[in-house]
Amino acid sequence: MSNPSLLILAGDGIGPEVMAQVTRIIDWFGDKRGLKFDVSEDLVGGAAYDAHGVALHDDTMAKAQEVDAVLLGAVGGPAYDDLDFSLKPERGLLRLRKEMDLFANLRPAQCFDALAEFSSLKTDIVSGLDIMIVRELTSGSYFGEPRGIHMEDNMRVGINTQRYTEAEIDRVARSAFELARRRNNKVCSMEKANVMESGILWRDVVTEVHQADYADVELSHMYADNGAMQLVRAPKQFDVIVTDNLFGDILSDCAAMLTGSLGMLPSASLGAPMENGRPKAMYEPVHGSAPDITGQGKANPSACILSFAMALRYSFDQGVEADRLEAAVEKVLADGIRTADLMQADGGTPVSTTQMGDAVLAAL
Amino acid sequence: MSNPSLLILAGDGIGPEVMAQVTRIIDWFGDKRGLKFDVSEDLVGGAAYDAHGVALHDDTMAKAQEVDAVLLGAVGGPAYDDLDFSLKPERGLLRLRKEMDLFANLRPAQCFDALAEFSSLKTDIVSGLDIMIVRELTSGSYFGEPRGIHMEDNMRVGINTQRYTEAEIDRVARSAFELARRRNNKVCSMEKANVMESGILWRDVVTEVHQADYADVELSHMYADNGAMQLVRAPKQFDVIVTDNLFGDILSDCAAMLTGSLGMLPSASLGAPMENGRPKAMYEPVHGSAPDITGQGKANPSACILSFAMALRYSFDQGVEADRLEAAVEKVLADGIRTADLMQADGGTPVSTTQMGDAVLAAL
Ligand SMILES: CC(C)[C@H](C(=O)O)[C@@H](O)C(=O)O
Ligand SMILES: CC(C)[C@H](C(=O)O)[C@@H](O)C(=O)O
Repeated sequence: MSNPSLLILAGDGIGPEVMAQVTRIIDWFGDKRGLKFDVSEDLVGGAAYDAHGVALHDDTMAKAQEVDAVLLGAVGGPAYDDLDFSLKPERGLLRLRKEMDLFANLRPAQCFDALAEFSSLKTDIVSGLDIMIVRELTSGSYFGEPRGIHMEDNMRVGINTQRYTEAEIDRVARSAFELARRRNNKVCSMEKANVMESGILWRDVVTEVHQADYADVELSHMYADNGAMQLVRAPKQFDVIVTDNLFGDILSDCAAMLTGSLGMLPSASLGAPMENGRPKAMYEPVHGSAPDITGQGKANPSACILSFAMALRYSFDQGVEADRLEAAVEKVLADGIRTADLMQADGGTPVSTTQMGDAVLAAL
Repeated sequence: MSNPSLLILAGDGIGPEVMAQVTRIIDWFGDKRGLKFDVSEDLVGGAAYDAHGVALHDDTMAKAQEVDAVLLGAVGGPAYDDLDFSLKPERGLLRLRKEMDLFANLRPAQCFDALAEFSSLKTDIVSGLDIMIVRELTSGSYFGEPRGIHMEDNMRVGINTQRYTEAEIDRVARSAFELARRRNNKVCSMEKANVMESGILWRDVVTEVHQADYADVELSHMYADNGAMQLVRAPKQFDVIVTDNLFGDILSDCAAMLTGSLGMLPSASLGAPMENGRPKAMYEPVHGSAPDITGQGKANPSACILSFAMALRYSFDQGVEADRLEAAVEKVLADGIRTADLMQADGGTPVSTTQMGDAVLAAL
């Protein structure tokens, strides 16, 4: 049997820097745990634009469809700010999500005990925080048609369409309920059913799926504005949150920031099972390309490393190895090893990206 | 000259309870400061539905168009949860906003020193916080057409339309820049120009208005997801934030909760100037109808009282009297007088809604 395949798209900014550490970890699992992967690499985002004039080449898209999992670094940067919308680095990311049909974006917001002090929230509000946000990722206002800027009565008008089908809501709701069963058995669904019909359909379908197949899971509904409030007020009330693409973008970033350690947070984007039973999948850190620290060896590779841990868990059924890798990262933190983003200004000397990789490898 | 006119729409839940205290304050300004108002009252939301079968009667709408300012309490409650979308209490509120064309929703997020302990954020992050969010209130996904739930290939599809014209963005941007000039001269505009064309137009028009007429104000742009993060991480970096209807709904609630005292926060919704030079205007607390405490005399009337202070400032050019009223509320807080929402569980005996009104009147 051939090895499982991984496509690495390191992308822009600190993407390649953090991904270099992940590559070392992948090698470690091959050498030490007999988990060999066939790894290939390609370009995405600004890097792809520089090489090919598009944010994702068709050949890269085709490769992504064939592999068992994609690992992505980050896309974008100020060099591309003036590009036309259709050429922007972000287009590469959105094309991957859409064409691979990665409808369930899993964004854990977990507060690492050793880092709770970095949260702007009081420690008792966030310590032990462990939420899973499930964001719909292939539809809604990001992709709905019609869209664009056109002229009407001599005036520019900007249009996007929020559009959800029953089937799109159904499948992401199921992902959320399944995850809840393996966690604390609670799902909170967020929308604006008080002002948007798409929100009414969202609420109705989530309720139907719940009644039909997941009545054992505790389900609640919340308006997204109240959701943002509750995340700030008392985030530990939540277990799994399921919401649409645009609300999910904002709420998951809000939740991520609660933990105080954005540089630590991974994500998984999952689609339907392929022939081999594995879901289509892409894994990436929640943080962006961080142009302000690019090339300085300062970036924290933990989020990208933990994204690979999610790959082990969700694509390769290696929960034990995923636990091992997560425990190694936690040990490094507990030992007080810190990249610059995990330190107060007067906290001493931070380790470099590579040294952080060294430390995780040593802890494995 | 006739007195300025006020229409009071107390609405549902705690709306009438908090509004009763505002009425006493209005009387005080008439008796003691010679500021007489012609006050009328009418129904909105569930209360209007119970009486007329609609969330806002046409006669009420007509009155709202004629008065100098509307004061609104709150709308909605569980009794109306099963109503059809078009009949929901929220429809009354949205109709007022739309037909009065109240495009600029001013939501101050201010942290009262005496209450900083109630924030879930660390005190140094929020103490002294004073942000003004300017939310576009008459367009975007709340009102765009087409909208609704229809069948397509035997499946329900929910649709809403995010739609902004150049003119709609232009006018709300001007409101934000004008406010910034009277504050700390900084505006941050938030959208998702990286994934939505409506966001590109938003960014372009805000930039054009800035270059044409407000180059003296410091302008920055931020993606709305990053905006949510930055609000949690370091909210004091902001002065005025300008954003669209849907992002504004979520971001202003997030900002409100940062302060830890939702029961204290007012809002103003302003439209174009009427013939008498006053803007069309509606004032309302940020909190909702709070069905859980309705009828118990526990509600905090401060947000509604401070909404009347905003009316004094923005509709009646009575900045000094507005300051006086705000100072009275602050004094009451500084004196340690607290409604239940402003107390820890073991904090002693809270005052009632009426006692809080008494205290503000005494401090005036
Ligand atoms: C980079 C951007 C297109 C993307 C999004 O808006 O989805 C990012 O914010 C995210 O959340 O992954
Ligand atoms: C009650 C509801 C319709 C309203 C909104 O969504 O605008 C509220 O959340 C607000 O922010 O004023």
